[in-house]
Amino acid sequence: MEALDYHAEERRKAEFDVDEMKIVWAGSRKAYEISDRVARLVASDPVFRKDSRTMLSRKELFKDTLKKAAHAWKRIIELRLSEEEATKLRFFVDQPVFTDLHFGMFIPAIKGSGSEEQKAKWLPMAYKMQIIGCYAQTELGHGSNVQGLETTATFDPQTDEFVIHSPTLTSRKWWPGGLGKVSTHAVVYARLIADGQDHGVHGFIVQLRSLDDHLPLPGITVGDIGMKFGSGAYNSMDNGVLKFDHVRIPRDQMLMGVSQITREGKYMESDVPRQLVYGTMVYVRQTIVASASSALSRAVCIATRYSAVRRQFGSQNGGPETQVIDYKTQQNRLFPLLASAYAFRFVGDWLKWLYTDVTQRLQANDFSTLPEVHACTAGLKSITTSATADAIEECRKLCGGHGYLSSSGLPELFAVYVPACTYEGDNVVLLLQVGRFLVKTVSQLGSGKKPVGTIAYMGRAEHLSQCRCEVQRAEDWLKTHVIVEAFEARAARMAVACAKNLNKFPNQEDGFAELSADLAEAAVAHCQLIVVSKFIEKLQQDIPGKGVKRQLEILCNVYALSLLHKHLGDFVATGCITPEQGALANEQLRQLYSQVRPNAITLVDAFNYTDHYLGSVLGRYDGNVYPKLYEEAWKDPLNETVVPDGYHKYIRPILKQHIRVARL
Amino acid sequence: MEALDYHAEERRKAEFDVDEMKIVWAGSRKAYEISDRVARLVASDPVFRKDSRTMLSRKELFKDTLKKAAHAWKRIIELRLSEEEATKLRFFVDQPVFTDLHFGMFIPAIKGSGSEEQKAKWLPMAYKMQIIGCYAQTELGHGSNVQGLETTATFDPQTDEFVIHSPTLTSRKWWPGGLGKVSTHAVVYARLIADGQDHGVHGFIVQLRSLDDHLPLPGITVGDIGMKFGSGAYNSMDNGVLKFDHVRIPRDQMLMGVSQITREGKYMESDVPRQLVYGTMVYVRQTIVASASSALSRAVCIATRYSAVRRQFGSQNGGPETQVIDYKTQQNRLFPLLASAYAFRFVGDWLKWLYTDVTQRLQANDFSTLPEVHACTAGLKSITTSATADAIEECRKLCGGHGYLSSSGLPELFAVYVPACTYEGDNVVLLLQVGRFLVKTVSQLGSGKKPVGTIAYMGRAEHLSQCRCEVQRAEDWLKTHVIVEAFEARAARMAVACAKNLNKFPNQEDGFAELSADLAEAAVAHCQLIVVSKFIEKLQQDIPGKGVKRQLEILCNVYALSLLHKHLGDFVATGCITPEQGALANEQLRQLYSQVRPNAITLVDAFNYTDHYLGSVLGRYDGNVYPKLYEEAWKDPLNETVVPDGYHKYIRPILKQHIRVARL
Repeated sequence: MEALDYHAEERRKAEFDVDEMKIVWAGSRKAYEISDRVARLVASDPVFRKDSRTMLSRKELFKDTLKKAAHAWKRIIELRLSEEEATKLRFFVDQPVFTDLHFGMFIPAIKGSGSEEQKAKWLPMAYKMQIIGCYAQTELGHGSNVQGLETTATFDPQTDEFVIHSPTLTSRKWWPGGLGKVSTHAVVYARLIADGQDHGVHGFIVQLRSLDDHLPLPGITVGDIGMKFGSGAYNSMDNGVLKFDHVRIPRDQMLMGVSQITREGKYMESDVPRQLVYGTMVYVRQTIVASASSALSRAVCIATRYSAVRRQFGSQNGGPETQVIDYKTQQNRLFPLLASAYAFRFVGDWLKWLYTDVTQRLQANDFSTLPEVHACTAGLKSITTSATADAIEECRKLCGGHGYLSSSGLPELFAVYVPACTYEGDNVVLLLQVGRFLVKTVSQLGSGKKPVGTIAYMGRAEHLSQCRCEVQRAEDWLKTHVIVEAFEARAARMAVACAKNLNKFPNQEDGFAELSADLAEAAVAHCQLIVVSKFIEKLQQDIPGKGVKRQLEILCNVYALSLLHKHLGDFVATGCITPEQGALANEQLRQLYSQVRPNAITLVDAFNYTDHYLGSVLGRYDGNVYPKLYEEAWKDPLNETVVPDGYHKYIRPILKQHIRVARL
Repeated sequence: MEALDYHAEERRKAEFDVDEMKIVWAGSRKAYEISDRVARLVASDPVFRKDSRTMLSRKELFKDTLKKAAHAWKRIIELRLSEEEATKLRFFVDQPVFTDLHFGMFIPAIKGSGSEEQKAKWLPMAYKMQIIGCYAQTELGHGSNVQGLETTATFDPQTDEFVIHSPTLTSRKWWPGGLGKVSTHAVVYARLIADGQDHGVHGFIVQLRSLDDHLPLPGITVGDIGMKFGSGAYNSMDNGVLKFDHVRIPRDQMLMGVSQITREGKYMESDVPRQLVYGTMVYVRQTIVASASSALSRAVCIATRYSAVRRQFGSQNGGPETQVIDYKTQQNRLFPLLASAYAFRFVGDWLKWLYTDVTQRLQANDFSTLPEVHACTAGLKSITTSATADAIEECRKLCGGHGYLSSSGLPELFAVYVPACTYEGDNVVLLLQVGRFLVKTVSQLGSGKKPVGTIAYMGRAEHLSQCRCEVQRAEDWLKTHVIVEAFEARAARMAVACAKNLNKFPNQEDGFAELSADLAEAAVAHCQLIVVSKFIEKLQQDIPGKGVKRQLEILCNVYALSLLHKHLGDFVATGCITPEQGALANEQLRQLYSQVRPNAITLVDAFNYTDHYLGSVLGRYDGNVYPKLYEEAWKDPLNETVVPDGYHKYIRPILKQHIRVARL
């Protein structure tokens, strides 16, 4: 029997080699092969099924998550998976769980801030999961401002111990994933008090629970912080609360890679440059940008496939209605998101390179690129996660009413993704950091300090402040140098304007406060330029495969021109382009949509997502949506009985007009 | 003991009379008193508690909802509440339930489309809830396009009956609220087939379940369609699926107010003008706009209060950190939303007046204003619901990490609100209808047909195409005529540009398709003008109370200028304002924020929401957030045991390195 494929006709339309595009998306043939193999492994394993996840109660969901984590660990050991494969496996299991924090935060914290002896002692246990750890930084009253943490670690020279304590309600640790119910250990961030002095926030390895019976150790109160956004979603994670009542730990459990407390209680900074911690930061942000492209591509895949299944209006002579993907309004909302998925993928790949580059420089004591790298990664984290969160919700709306069903997969994807806008730096706070960096760069332009890397264009600020866009016809917008110059000019002019306006304030800090919204907008302009530039740089590489490069060129133009349209006010108000040129960009954009249309289904196939990973009836590879939607509905617990529980007590008395005497 | 109030200091700062503002918000003193009394009644009744709602399983949640519905009905009868009071009571119970559809759709459908005899027969039973009904229109494959419905109602003259049937999978009814588990009856929309002819879609009253034992009647398959977005939220509602297998109903159960089938099977249209149905449509859309202002104000109330509690950074000399509401970036995101809540409230009030006006005109056979009213209500439904959905999510982000907790109330508010963007007309489809109306208005400008009502400004299109904004200093933007003219000019120029571009297409429909995105943007410009204008008109009324009018003037300016900034591209690209004038608007906006700041807490107090209705630990009236957050956490089911269920099976084998032999 031939497999059913409602999208077969769509797939025949494609003008490029989808197998080659899959490799471009994955980053390399090897990455593709690993990803493909591990994804199928997970998809075919019944333990990893997740189709009833949104119907489970909190306790059932949590137990299901523990089961999956244990099974994943078992498979990783049995199959002797490499670290890369193991990470992929956890990724495709697609359920937030304590191991994310154990491998993603606890181990890196020890690696990054522990001394050599500490690493030798703790890391082997952690890698084998003889201990399970979490990362306990944020507190009930303290998030973004790490320096405001209140938990104390007071050195007691009498016993050679630290006393970890939660002095106030707001000092209780709050949010750490894996803390609530699972972790045996934590890296706890606390104010180091020694010799009567407050030495600021440092990390400490603290055991929380007994390795014998899992009970909290004396002085430790720990629990889960309760339900979060959505059903399923992040409720599989035991984000926790933690209160210390004078808990004592040995001195050697302070992470001593960078600073130490001596046996006598003397505080000492090591000669290891503090800047080394920035390497980790670049790494973490690179993974966040990569996750953005994953989440976004997943939502776009669902919305694109369902837009080709769904039909509304336009029936002629009794024929079928029009596929909604053929409507320009649908294309105008969907295709820029499809293009963004690819754009974020490529800028994520570039960040991997940047991480390597920065690491090498740091090892060679070259800290010169750090401010630029810091601004660039902060800004990219901010704009890609904000855009992705909005895009997932837009994709949900693009699926009409059915997008609101949990079986569409989109509500859970949104709920599980959206904290990325807040964690690892609130997106607005990050943009302000970028904005400050931009105006600082502008103010130093005369000083002979040449801007490098992503900020190099600022060296041409004078030219960019005066240049005129050469576009005369719509197709002029297809020239990459035209696009790049328009984006550079916009970013440069906005930054220069901010710097000028700041100078009007007698007090610089008052100026920053007052103009913060403008600074954030200038930062967005700068970061969008980076994404556009990196997409264009990608296209300058050799990209094999029939039609592959051509498709990417189209998507790159869609990305840039849709941004230009969305931020037309920036471009026109700064005089970078005229209103007429803006209208021509829009005209070109519409033509590009027609070129994307025949390739749309295949462009999302190139993400190579299994139906298991997508987790969406609407996004099924075979397009067999309606019978499956109907089938899924009957699985809801409410359908276990024909007459609902509560009928006799709460419905019948109403119908029989016995409500006044009913005992409710 | 004096009640704790962390916001007392904030409340003392207010420069206006909050009691008078409460009356402005409610619409009248009487409306305020009813609302206040009923809200307290609900808040003090333990049956209506909702603080554990997000932790309940689907079945528990549904049973809890039935309980609340029965209790609400009991209280309504016991207290002999008026219809207005009963509606308020259901509103404050704040949990979607079958009675919403029974009173909100089933009864209005019979009232609107039934004959006098049908109304006399069915309405008394429905009002007393001897029958419970729902509104069964949408199908698995058919949403927006009502004319594409597939369910058939075939007249059988032999038995004087209709045969209701679901001929295909996609014809099954899908989504109707109250259908899945509760309704005994439905108004079913089906294609009327009589005399071998398809007479299009009509409504039929169909009994679904036995009034004795609640079992589905023969030929009827009915169930719930499963989980939807969020925990709690709309999962309290039994949105349903319904399949008919040749179900027979008497001829007199076709709704015959507008058209009839005779005993012989002859189809007849009555002489009642079809346009009368538009009265209902205006009514429904008015309620949707009113709901938008309710949902938005609720989110803004939570975010504003918590922004005054939450502190981050800026600590000096060891003092407390800065309240986040004092940051300009927070104000820049929050205060436009606060202003929008008031703006939507007033445009909603105006729509109530419009409904009365339209009803009177229809009764006098005056259909002249219908196209304008249709466009205006469609557009206002679209922009207010889209803005509100986005704003709720923005308010959630404005609360930082804690906004992600269910106990913040914001995740559930978002999940329960967001379908408003899709139901009663998809927001993008509605904007296109408005866009078409606008270009039609433009094309008729020369014909002597004078535009009226909200479109009257188009009569001055020639002036508006040439006028120049007179702003020279920031404070010039405070003049209402300057704001109105800028918004009128922008809307007119965008509509005229669309009309011109459309004319370039040989085929008008191709043009509509190709330019749909531009049409939607022109529609948004038109509708924003309406909201701004109605806010300004409100301010021209006599508004008593110290400082009340002044505050509303500030908010009106914030609303208009923040829109202007957001859509700067429209204003500048159409030449309505210069970039310099745009910058001055921004400068003025910042000054306005400083004027809002001292009044912010009191401006949200004026919504007069009880802590019960708000349902948010972060938004508590007394600001006592952190102790309550901590307290709430422990109520999660996961905290019932210290060691989680699953420890022995799934965690201990990992820690003890027994995973390979574990039976998972």
